[in-house]
Amino acid sequence: MPIKAVVWGENVHEQENAVVRGIYPDGMHETIAKALNTGDGIKATTATLQQPEHGLTEARLAETDVLLWWGHAAHGKVSDAVVERVATRVWEGMGLIVLHSGHYSKIFKRLMGTPCSLKWREAGERERLWVINRNHPIVAGLGEALELEQSEMYGEPFAVPEPDETVFVSWYEGGEVFRSGLCYKRGAGRIFYFSPGHETYPIFHNPEIHTVLRNAVNWAHNPAPAWKSITDAPNVPVSEAREAIEQKGPRLHADGEEGYR
Amino acid sequence: MPIKAVVWGENVHEQENAVVRGIYPDGMHETIAKALNTGDGIKATTATLQQPEHGLTEARLAETDVLLWWGHAAHGKVSDAVVERVATRVWEGMGLIVLHSGHYSKIFKRLMGTPCSLKWREAGERERLWVINRNHPIVAGLGEALELEQSEMYGEPFAVPEPDETVFVSWYEGGEVFRSGLCYKRGAGRIFYFSPGHETYPIFHNPEIHTVLRNAVNWAHNPAPAWKSITDAPNVPVSEAREAIEQKGPRLHADGEEGYR
Amino acid sequence: MPIKAVVWGENVHEQENAVVRGIYPDGMHETIAKALNTGDGIKATTATLQQPEHGLTEARLAETDVLLWWGHAAHGKVSDAVVERVATRVWEGMGLIVLHSGHYSKIFKRLMGTPCSLKWREAGERERLWVINRNHPIVAGLGEALELEQSEMYGEPFAVPEPDETVFVSWYEGGEVFRSGLCYKRGAGRIFYFSPGHETYPIFHNPEIHTVLRNAVNWAHNPAPAWKSITDAPNVPVSEAREAIEQKGPRLHADGEEGYR
Amino acid sequence: MPIKAVVWGENVHEQENAVVRGIYPDGMHETIAKALNTGDGIKATTATLQQPEHGLTEARLAETDVLLWWGHAAHGKVSDAVVERVATRVWEGMGLIVLHSGHYSKIFKRLMGTPCSLKWREAGERERLWVINRNHPIVAGLGEALELEQSEMYGEPFAVPEPDETVFVSWYEGGEVFRSGLCYKRGAGRIFYFSPGHETYPIFHNPEIHTVLRNAVNWAHNPAPAWKSITDAPNVPVSEAREAIEQKGPRLHADGEEGYR
Repeated sequence: MPIKAVVWGENVHEQENAVVRGIYPDGMHETIAKALNTGDGIKATTATLQQPEHGLTEARLAETDVLLWWGHAAHGKVSDAVVERVATRVWEGMGLIVLHSGHYSKIFKRLMGTPCSLKWREAGERERLWVINRNHPIVAGLGEALELEQSEMYGEPFAVPEPDETVFVSWYEGGEVFRSGLCYKRGAGRIFYFSPGHETYPIFHNPEIHTVLRNAVNWAHNPAPAWKSITDAPNVPVSEAREAIEQKGPRLHADGEEGYR
Repeated sequence: MPIKAVVWGENVHEQENAVVRGIYPDGMHETIAKALNTGDGIKATTATLQQPEHGLTEARLAETDVLLWWGHAAHGKVSDAVVERVATRVWEGMGLIVLHSGHYSKIFKRLMGTPCSLKWREAGERERLWVINRNHPIVAGLGEALELEQSEMYGEPFAVPEPDETVFVSWYEGGEVFRSGLCYKRGAGRIFYFSPGHETYPIFHNPEIHTVLRNAVNWAHNPAPAWKSITDAPNVPVSEAREAIEQKGPRLHADGEEGYR
Repeated sequence: MPIKAVVWGENVHEQENAVVRGIYPDGMHETIAKALNTGDGIKATTATLQQPEHGLTEARLAETDVLLWWGHAAHGKVSDAVVERVATRVWEGMGLIVLHSGHYSKIFKRLMGTPCSLKWREAGERERLWVINRNHPIVAGLGEALELEQSEMYGEPFAVPEPDETVFVSWYEGGEVFRSGLCYKRGAGRIFYFSPGHETYPIFHNPEIHTVLRNAVNWAHNPAPAWKSITDAPNVPVSEAREAIEQKGPRLHADGEEGYR
Repeated sequence: MPIKAVVWGENVHEQENAVVRGIYPDGMHETIAKALNTGDGIKATTATLQQPEHGLTEARLAETDVLLWWGHAAHGKVSDAVVERVATRVWEGMGLIVLHSGHYSKIFKRLMGTPCSLKWREAGERERLWVINRNHPIVAGLGEALELEQSEMYGEPFAVPEPDETVFVSWYEGGEVFRSGLCYKRGAGRIFYFSPGHETYPIFHNPEIHTVLRNAVNWAHNPAPAWKSITDAPNVPVSEAREAIEQKGPRLHADGEEGYR
């Protein structure tokens, strides 16, 4: 059964900026989805900001294995309710791949617990993404580095937690470096942040970028059933303790009472 | 110069519940502050939910080195604006020590990016906190374990990110375990979660608990100047690149334009 | 193509101790291999200390995907050359599952860089392994805890590096706790330490233990080609630098000279 | 009381190579020790390969708080017994700072459990070390980056475990990147790897490098008493269990018997 991926695109620059529309006439999200659908094993569809509930209803998220997120100009227009819904699905086990300017999306900041800030420069300079761990599943099929002739510079310090795994570190022509591929877990969900993808360059037409995205979808997919109870804080009554114990001492809660939240 | 600590207490049970008031007539926050003020090196004061801005104004947080947080019944009454203010100060370098039911506070969930849920049982059972790394600064002065004759059970799974360091793991009479002392970093700020502290037991009168709290304040203190710019995402103009480069390719942003947020 | 697993058994207690032989007449290694071979996807064979090169020749390791290791009385009899050979294969991408008293094996200490010491008691007491992350692939098919009616106690502090992931934490009848399932990476290889498995109890006949072992083999398998060059430290000549540079400054090494090791 | 630091230098190139001797007439180790002794709080001495027991006797290590290690041509001449002695002291709590080509020293490889390999080029090119976390104690007093006009290139992949904290990432003129400042813990000991320091450039005369080294010594110092028992694996008899239990089941070990190692 193929992995069900949804590529979420903000879809603003493609509508408003002639350069971006020229490179991505169908929108970046459609270009990315098409790349994911090449070959076997992934069935990708798209969703955009402009759709009702941004295309991310409860029902759709419930059947999504991996969500990819590209946003930039309109982070503030994303509904807080949808952000919480996505966060909950990640905790339950949905994979999340955050692309480029998505570093500043509500959902990424929500899951990292940090500002997710960085430095930037839009100068069309060369970027070289060095592979840190050659046998990581996300870099399967790549050589020792991935080169982008024109890229937006993203520079350190990148205000994120220390990652579980550093997959790529980038070199920039103008003298900066950036941890450009980082892995995290939040609850049962795997998260991959991948920094390339500025909208005025044809980065999402690059075959090596396609390879990384496909690998990342496979890596982020958690086949376990959704961990629905991860947001619960259940009481374990004395009668159900694994070891026989007796109620002792003063109590705040009466029998059967729920905890505070 | 002593470390400036602020002990934040929700101060609800102490007002409403006779058992809790009996154990902590001045409130848990005052008991904790008093323990911190024993010996040299820490100057602790208190703040409560009921004060204007919960006692955590910009000015006061700006001069706070380490904040301790105990909340339970009234997590939902804490202002979102104050939570963001506290989060920002943590990123800038303020230490944060989250106590017991504070696992479900807005600020801890905000900084972890996870549900922070757990199992619980209020049965007055025995808890034994085993020291994982004997030479960690937070356990200085303790033996191999810290015993609490009566404690509330907190059980796994504890839905938090994998910690930077596991300092304590607890054994419970009723058969559960819990990672009861965990270290994190978020930006320049150090965070310690410590699970003991149920309000119907005299845990904050325990001298070994005092030792842990004093150690934790010292550990969490970052003497570096506040990292004020951590929430900024500055543009680095071509003219200020460390290596000489020229502007190339199409652009989205005009010169001097700010990035999107 | 099935995952090729090799179960390495010290095979000493099974020969010398009547109790152990009674429980594992074919040896623990054969019992474990048989459990792995149940169902699809894994082809397990065995190797023992007594075989030439302990059954772990270069050729055999080269075609092994995942190695399981159980040793106890004869850690010191394992050849250092074989240990280095196994370590190299782990760095190249072979998975390694270290069982029970294997915590003190040369290979585990070699890969951890720590003493790997712990406390112990052979009292036939109850152990309960709590699942920390319910959707981790290693716990697929388990409930919230795995109970062993009789087990050897292994207690903290367990002198290992902070793990990448804590999968199990154990509760013991006698009052201790232990981080009983831990994940690490070393080079391209994944390592899982799993503490149950004392030889005088029928633990390797337990179906839930079989589930964990099969899951762990699947998790530890890295399908990428062996990272053969991981132990090399290649010179990159000026002429092959990705950016054009010129030789500058004084030099220690002449052209084409190898580095020191 | 000042922190007692020992700077260990291989002291080979300084004796054999005129360029190196010209830059470091007293040896790199003396230059580093002198830098550490500037200002208060650190008392640094030196030790070299050529001394009996390489200058690292049991007695001297016992009173050393932090050891700095520079080696290159003669890694193979360092006695295995001294390496084990140093590793044990790190586990007990001694800090260790590994410099430059020390990445391939026996002691660093011993503590990492990985090959510690990398790419290299001796071309006198520019290196820029970007600060990843501006408020980390190791970078106190630095700006956003530290520039070296001439440096040896060290390139990824650097075959080390994922670090606890990434403090520096380097940019090189020839197009590579390197994780040039990394923190680890092994037992009670803190380890900092810092890559600058090629012997044919005056890097250890650089005041910003001095700042990093002094900061690192302060960071690596663990004031707790040595954790002498960290290599022990003590039996906890039934009679000393924290919870009352009875001996059950078959046993391998007789009363009072030591465990295997």
